Amino acid sequence: MKKNNEIKKVVLAYSGGLDTSITIPWLKENYGCEVIAVVGNVGQDDELEGLEEKAIQTGASKIFIEDLTDEFVEDFVFETLKAGAKYEGKYLLGTSFARPVIAKRLVEIAHREGADAIAHGCTGKGNDQVRFELAVKAFDPDMEIIAPWRTWELKSREDEIEYAKERNIPLPMKEDNIYSEDRNIWHVSHEGLDLEYPDTEPNYDNFLKMSVSPENAPNTPTYVTISFEKGIPVAVNGEKMSGKNIIKVLNKVGGENGVGIDDIIENRLVGMKVRGVYENPGGAILYKAHEILESITLDGDTQHYKDVVSVEFANVVYNGKWFSPLREALSAFVNKTQETVTGEVKLKLYKGNIINAGVTSPYSLYNEEFATFGEDGVYDQHDSQGFVNLYSLSTKVQSMMKKKLKNNSMTGNTL
Amino acid sequence: MKKNNEIKKVVLAYSGGLDTSITIPWLKENYGCEVIAVVGNVGQDDELEGLEEKAIQTGASKIFIEDLTDEFVEDFVFETLKAGAKYEGKYLLGTSFARPVIAKRLVEIAHREGADAIAHGCTGKGNDQVRFELAVKAFDPDMEIIAPWRTWELKSREDEIEYAKERNIPLPMKEDNIYSEDRNIWHVSHEGLDLEYPDTEPNYDNFLKMSVSPENAPNTPTYVTISFEKGIPVAVNGEKMSGKNIIKVLNKVGGENGVGIDDIIENRLVGMKVRGVYENPGGAILYKAHEILESITLDGDTQHYKDVVSVEFANVVYNGKWFSPLREALSAFVNKTQETVTGEVKLKLYKGNIINAGVTSPYSLYNEEFATFGEDGVYDQHDSQGFVNLYSLSTKVQSMMKKKLKNNSMTGNTL
Amino acid sequence: MKKNNEIKKVVLAYSGGLDTSITIPWLKENYGCEVIAVVGNVGQDDELEGLEEKAIQTGASKIFIEDLTDEFVEDFVFETLKAGAKYEGKYLLGTSFARPVIAKRLVEIAHREGADAIAHGCTGKGNDQVRFELAVKAFDPDMEIIAPWRTWELKSREDEIEYAKERNIPLPMKEDNIYSEDRNIWHVSHEGLDLEYPDTEPNYDNFLKMSVSPENAPNTPTYVTISFEKGIPVAVNGEKMSGKNIIKVLNKVGGENGVGIDDIIENRLVGMKVRGVYENPGGAILYKAHEILESITLDGDTQHYKDVVSVEFANVVYNGKWFSPLREALSAFVNKTQETVTGEVKLKLYKGNIINAGVTSPYSLYNEEFATFGEDGVYDQHDSQGFVNLYSLSTKVQSMMKKKLKNNSMTGNTL
Amino acid sequence: MKKNNEIKKVVLAYSGGLDTSITIPWLKENYGCEVIAVVGNVGQDDELEGLEEKAIQTGASKIFIEDLTDEFVEDFVFETLKAGAKYEGKYLLGTSFARPVIAKRLVEIAHREGADAIAHGCTGKGNDQVRFELAVKAFDPDMEIIAPWRTWELKSREDEIEYAKERNIPLPMKEDNIYSEDRNIWHVSHEGLDLEYPDTEPNYDNFLKMSVSPENAPNTPTYVTISFEKGIPVAVNGEKMSGKNIIKVLNKVGGENGVGIDDIIENRLVGMKVRGVYENPGGAILYKAHEILESITLDGDTQHYKDVVSVEFANVVYNGKWFSPLREALSAFVNKTQETVTGEVKLKLYKGNIINAGVTSPYSLYNEEFATFGEDGVYDQHDSQGFVNLYSLSTKVQSMMKKKLKNNSMTGNTL
Repeated sequence: MKKNNEIKKVVLAYSGGLDTSITIPWLKENYGCEVIAVVGNVGQDDELEGLEEKAIQTGASKIFIEDLTDEFVEDFVFETLKAGAKYEGKYLLGTSFARPVIAKRLVEIAHREGADAIAHGCTGKGNDQVRFELAVKAFDPDMEIIAPWRTWELKSREDEIEYAKERNIPLPMKEDNIYSEDRNIWHVSHEGLDLEYPDTEPNYDNFLKMSVSPENAPNTPTYVTISFEKGIPVAVNGEKMSGKNIIKVLNKVGGENGVGIDDIIENRLVGMKVRGVYENPGGAILYKAHEILESITLDGDTQHYKDVVSVEFANVVYNGKWFSPLREALSAFVNKTQETVTGEVKLKLYKGNIINAGVTSPYSLYNEEFATFGEDGVYDQHDSQGFVNLYSLSTKVQSMMKKKLKNNSMTGNTL
Repeated sequence: MKKNNEIKKVVLAYSGGLDTSITIPWLKENYGCEVIAVVGNVGQDDELEGLEEKAIQTGASKIFIEDLTDEFVEDFVFETLKAGAKYEGKYLLGTSFARPVIAKRLVEIAHREGADAIAHGCTGKGNDQVRFELAVKAFDPDMEIIAPWRTWELKSREDEIEYAKERNIPLPMKEDNIYSEDRNIWHVSHEGLDLEYPDTEPNYDNFLKMSVSPENAPNTPTYVTISFEKGIPVAVNGEKMSGKNIIKVLNKVGGENGVGIDDIIENRLVGMKVRGVYENPGGAILYKAHEILESITLDGDTQHYKDVVSVEFANVVYNGKWFSPLREALSAFVNKTQETVTGEVKLKLYKGNIINAGVTSPYSLYNEEFATFGEDGVYDQHDSQGFVNLYSLSTKVQSMMKKKLKNNSMTGNTL
Repeated sequence: MKKNNEIKKVVLAYSGGLDTSITIPWLKENYGCEVIAVVGNVGQDDELEGLEEKAIQTGASKIFIEDLTDEFVEDFVFETLKAGAKYEGKYLLGTSFARPVIAKRLVEIAHREGADAIAHGCTGKGNDQVRFELAVKAFDPDMEIIAPWRTWELKSREDEIEYAKERNIPLPMKEDNIYSEDRNIWHVSHEGLDLEYPDTEPNYDNFLKMSVSPENAPNTPTYVTISFEKGIPVAVNGEKMSGKNIIKVLNKVGGENGVGIDDIIENRLVGMKVRGVYENPGGAILYKAHEILESITLDGDTQHYKDVVSVEFANVVYNGKWFSPLREALSAFVNKTQETVTGEVKLKLYKGNIINAGVTSPYSLYNEEFATFGEDGVYDQHDSQGFVNLYSLSTKVQSMMKKKLKNNSMTGNTL
Repeated sequence: MKKNNEIKKVVLAYSGGLDTSITIPWLKENYGCEVIAVVGNVGQDDELEGLEEKAIQTGASKIFIEDLTDEFVEDFVFETLKAGAKYEGKYLLGTSFARPVIAKRLVEIAHREGADAIAHGCTGKGNDQVRFELAVKAFDPDMEIIAPWRTWELKSREDEIEYAKERNIPLPMKEDNIYSEDRNIWHVSHEGLDLEYPDTEPNYDNFLKMSVSPENAPNTPTYVTISFEKGIPVAVNGEKMSGKNIIKVLNKVGGENGVGIDDIIENRLVGMKVRGVYENPGGAILYKAHEILESITLDGDTQHYKDVVSVEFANVVYNGKWFSPLREALSAFVNKTQETVTGEVKLKLYKGNIINAGVTSPYSLYNEEFATFGEDGVYDQHDSQGFVNLYSLSTKVQSMMKKKLKNNSMTGNTL
């Protein structure tokens, strides 16, 4: 670890929020260093306004606002969608893969600018510190990482506000009592306040940002059709568009119909359980559509084993190991399976429900001839006699063994 | 295999439907045997009326109507609920475990009555033949099994009706064009007709039996509270009741609110894909409640590995191996995990949605102190520095290796 | 299924042994068809002599002897070696992947020659019929497959000999009482006779073909060094050679030192347990070397998950699904992990033992600095305090819960 | 965390080695506390001599030498043997489960003696600190844990010797250059010195304690027969004896024949790779015997899934989570599978080889009738036709899909 006075220039992952705003003076005061603010735009668009001015005013020497949205969508979001990965069966990993894409760019900028260290504003209780730092180390094992939250003396929001006021740092225009929120193009997460108590029913109207609650959704359903090529969404309602735009369009229609809201108690890597509400309107639609398409284009064996791989994929990503040989090998598996995941899925959105309304694919393995109840030319029911006999052979052998043992004991024979 | 003329008495799994009705004369004509009809009541109550008279009229020498509902619920349904097992992530296995409970009783009756064989009406294309026959063999490896569908000359519903008319067998009062349906206390499944085409949107109003579609559900939500003891539901809205009654009550309230309807394309054991719509109103509520309760009462490690075990549990049950050493060992695992799964879950039912409205347990591992964002006495954020450093050690070592290789190649050193 | 008289030309997987020899006249007599014999050479070299003449003499219209050894080694054996796949933890799959490579060529020849059907000599009790037929169907779903063993009237070796004599078919020069054997460049398997009784100690001297027993191996060890590039063996003792030659060289030195003999009771796909003794002298050496090399070149996460994937890989191959989307996706995973599996492994062979004698790799993740017991500059032991504290957090929370419950019950508080 | 002056009495896990010897004065000097030394005897018998006197002389107020060997063998070693658990496929976990059994007793003594803290001598680089502390926290979440190695100023063996000399602490009679060793009734592990370099061939003669190398083993084989009841070894060569004595007897005969020596590069929980040589003569024999017995007493499904569970069991134990709900649930699974694992296994030991020499069990599922090549009454080869047809159905459907696509593209039809 470097000594404080060896740090001359720090690249800071900057959001403009209270935490990273006070980090700028804190770094300068504690290290006597220059601070370069870097904002990774992963689709949190409206939060980006005025950041440039604000960062400089707060003491940064420069600010880079990097548009990572396309990279984020193509290389992270869709790679995970193809895997069908959900952490603990539910969470669509919106925050988990946003950290590595930003960290990667931070290292690039640090190298280009000749910085000695990278700083981030993640707390010591969360998963994000892990995700950030693993990604930084994957690209530069020797890069110094500074995580003020783990070491500074500020212990609460009040302390931070006090610290900011003393240094004339512009405070964000937020009310006192707010949920903790993380937003990007893929999702919004909500934590804190009454959500910290698992016996509480959340009042969605208090915090939803992308969506309305099912109750507030329209009384008539909306239909939407998604087209996929090799597992990647390429069109909505027949209209080709970029990945970014597909998500935006689906967030809008999904949010209006109240789909993709999940209230989850999850196990953090750092050992504690936390509760959060996630909004993923577009994500929920894409996952459901992709899953339906796979149900006709993947054979049973592949589908079953991909479900297993998918769990590992989610764990690896949740736990911050996006840039790892294991994640890359899991992706190689997934991508091989996606070669035939091409087709169209129609869905009906209605007050929180996403309902299958039909699927087609040139690679469909669903064969009406086999599936039918009546007579057909391809499936000979006599075959099933032999199938059942062999399939049950092991059961029969066990049963024979038990019967023999029982007979022996009844006739007084000991084993 | 026995010769036809060695079969003197056959126990037939009888439902009163067209298939098993014509099986009675068919067995008598082909084997010259006595036929004992056995009906396993697993909660398909209204389908049982008039069966006694009908069986005798069709040629059976006796009929036994066995009430297996409590055994079915306690030993099969709840055992699977505790496992959280869903086939291919969705199907609650309603038909899968109904076959073994009936088959077990068939063997008992066959032994008591001195029958030479057991007959069933499952087709040669489905999973049920496998489930039936494995269960029979588990209890008696030498019992002869007769599966007329796999061998007889009748190839379609029309053939069957003709066959029945020739023998004056009373035809069931069913319309010509009907979905194929399997019903018990836990679920109703629907297959056939337009459902055989995966590009078709199903018209739920045409076939739903236990539930209304989300559109037809009331505009105001219903709240329901489920209490569990060691993973088993014991009360609804604070009122203790039997397992059977819990399911009935929840089927009613769930069905009214349109929850638990699933449209699935699944992979059958016998190799083809089929599409079915399942109604599991009570089941969906119980699974969701159980899952929420586990999210605060199981530690992360156990929860994650139980998710893995759960997939295997579902496969084993779906594939007909209920009575097997593996299923029993999986249940031993599951039951051990359920020792602390005691508590109450409140849910909000609204037009197809089942929404978490709060959970409590004396065994809760959710610790607000740890989960909070502010200062606390139990979690020292300095610990996370060390945690992240060691957790990322392997990543760092890999990154060091790559850097060294890169430097070597830049300086012209070869490996 | 085609009728007998629709079959005009059959391609037969021919070995020159008794079974496939009598299949030629049997096919001609039963189908009135032309029979083309095809021998797939996968390294069973000495068994190939005189086959051409013999096939024609037995009634085949043509014979093709196809050298598949290189394809077998490069595309099947090494692909599986990279996966580290062993069925039930032991069996190196020598027969399992020999069937598909041959079946693929059979389909190619059948298409080229305009044949109506493919015939094989596998019995109805084994795995090979499954492996053959799945591979055929993977390349041509409509190809007729004829498996005489499952249908003909010959029930024993004596019946076959009688059948052969009646038709003047030259009998193989084999003693009466012989073990059933399958041989190729990768292995020899032995089954039958006293091996069918699991309480019997096998007398290796009676049947070993590639190796001597450990007792008969030399009293001084032999050292051998294997070089790998991306998981593939490329040199022995520093000398580059083809895959085929590497296996031959290692079979020789391994066989002389009695390594790679395994006595296994395995579970066949068709439901029964069988016992076999396998000789894999070269295979055992390559697997051990590859495993040691991976232990320094794969990170822990990848190594652990690859172990899981490896089990599935072995099952898929054993069960005849080499040509399947799942096997291809598993290979994609495996190949991604092998990018750094480059280096050298030295082994000591001594009377059945294969002993690690040192490993090196430019991609080594083994870092002496970290591994040392003494002081070092890279690992700060203070980090472990934080690591242990967070790693044990979940345990601590559970323990706190139990303590609270216990205290409550001691003070008379009920939950 | 308690302040130093709040610690009045410390229970120390004491071994009499240099590390834990200097810990006594270090604790007294740094905390001003009383130190109670506790030795957990898990079979390292000869290391226990003179410990009582030595501990008092070094400054401990009391010493308890606790014989935990039976508990260790019955509740930890055999529980793991039944699971068949080996970490990374090889390591028999000898050190991993020795830590929890000792830690449990430490907590009991700390409670009885009213101690404020528990201290251990594990370094900050190893797994043992984790295993110790998790076990302590499982029994008392609030117990203070002191790990001097992570905090003190002593950085090398030389520092420690200096520290000891200054305080007149008797130094252990060990040579300067020694391998680091951990010994109990189940195993001895060796690390350090030249073993730290993976390119080095170890000279076994320099360090083996329980065994001779294969070269030094006798030229004639030794046979040994092990009897199991429900997965637990109960007799050797027909003679019933305690678990402890079984291990002792097998260690002797196994050690003499050079079996159970393993040279492993393993992945530690704390992120680095280390190399160690393990001696497990008795363990290797018991694992092999148990595995052979399972191969005839477990059905294929159970065997395959138990192999999966076994990997998790090993990871959980290696990573210090013996006392955890997950380990207990895994044990419940395992124990259920062991109900029929009763029988006898004969093994031939010869110069490092453990060779199957026959197995018998009253619960054997190995059925010679099915396994035979000739005619039999139980297995109808015609069944395999149907089996193969259905088993390959999914492959056929995929192949049909591909053929249709190919034909369409050849005829110019687009999808």
